[in-house]
Amino acid sequence: MALEPPLPLTNPRAARTRRSLYDAAARLFVEQGYEDTTMAEIAAAAGTSRRTAFNHFPNKGDIPMVWVRQMADRALGEIADAPRGDVVDRIHGYFRVISRSVEAEPELSRQMMLGWTAALGPALYESQLLADVTPLLHQAQDDGQIPRDVDIAVAARALSDVLQGAVFRWVREPGTDLGDRVDSAIALVLRAVAAQTPGS
Amino acid sequence: MALEPPLPLTNPRAARTRRSLYDAAARLFVEQGYEDTTMAEIAAAAGTSRRTAFNHFPNKGDIPMVWVRQMADRALGEIADAPRGDVVDRIHGYFRVISRSVEAEPELSRQMMLGWTAALGPALYESQLLADVTPLLHQAQDDGQIPRDVDIAVAARALSDVLQGAVFRWVREPGTDLGDRVDSAIALVLRAVAAQTPGS
Repeated sequence: MALEPPLPLTNPRAARTRRSLYDAAARLFVEQGYEDTTMAEIAAAAGTSRRTAFNHFPNKGDIPMVWVRQMADRALGEIADAPRGDVVDRIHGYFRVISRSVEAEPELSRQMMLGWTAALGPALYESQLLADVTPLLHQAQDDGQIPRDVDIAVAARALSDVLQGAVFRWVREPGTDLGDRVDSAIALVLRAVAAQTPGS
Repeated sequence: MALEPPLPLTNPRAARTRRSLYDAAARLFVEQGYEDTTMAEIAAAAGTSRRTAFNHFPNKGDIPMVWVRQMADRALGEIADAPRGDVVDRIHGYFRVISRSVEAEPELSRQMMLGWTAALGPALYESQLLADVTPLLHQAQDDGQIPRDVDIAVAARALSDVLQGAVFRWVREPGTDLGDRVDSAIALVLRAVAAQTPGS
């Protein structure tokens, strides 16, 4: 199983094909569900061969990994454009963009989460957000916004885990406000991180 | 799909049969993996019919739910036996018993987590620990150990999510010390809960 997000392609034609395959998959997942969509249908809808589809996505479970990566890249892009300054605010902003992206296309997000779970994603792969958030936390620590004695790895895992928990819960309870839930959970963890040294 | 933990049985014979089925399932999951174990094999190993097995466990995915419930009951029992007093310490103790139970039978735990995930558990069901931890947090708040303005629901979800994240990570990285990981994550969240009101 190769559930790592595929590397960006330098060949523009291959990148276009992958884009078409991803877009076709996303459309079909919404229309008929992740479970009931085959790689052959995805290839046909994208106008490519089954073999080309499998070259790009050896497993259907690779597709939700691309979905996560795209949201995470959008979030990194938005916080990079934001005025510099409080890194802890930027971390908070990163999670806000993610939850906004998840909520923007609820049925797509639901299918991607179900698909990722069915491919054993949570039991097999670390969240891609951990790798994004870790350097931000280190930067906040270097800037003196997080005390020196805070274990950044513990903080990064907690942030990643409360986000993942919130998104799973939102899949189960579609009426709930994911943005609010993520905001309060991330705020809780960030408060602990800032509060680690009494009196700091 | 009925992935709720089965109710306790009042009929002792039925309770014995369910126990045999659970024990047979646990043994087979360790020997040949959750994925490769069928309900028919579980029934045969327990010396019952396939029909009886399905009456007790309509889905193979029900079995990991029983595994979680048993660990959680053991944890509640241990903290109930402990001297009363600091409720926050008791919450910490609850998670310590859970991580000790998970680590005590690593291959069983791994197969149960993989099985629960394959049955879409994380995307379909709230962690059973949330229902255990919520009244403990309320009690701590009533006892004045957690400030009044702390949102207990947010705290309970965060505790449950960091535990789940830690267990998934331990499944992926068998060499790591689950107890340490859970301890530091739970401590982080509990610190935020206690630190919510500045100066309190």
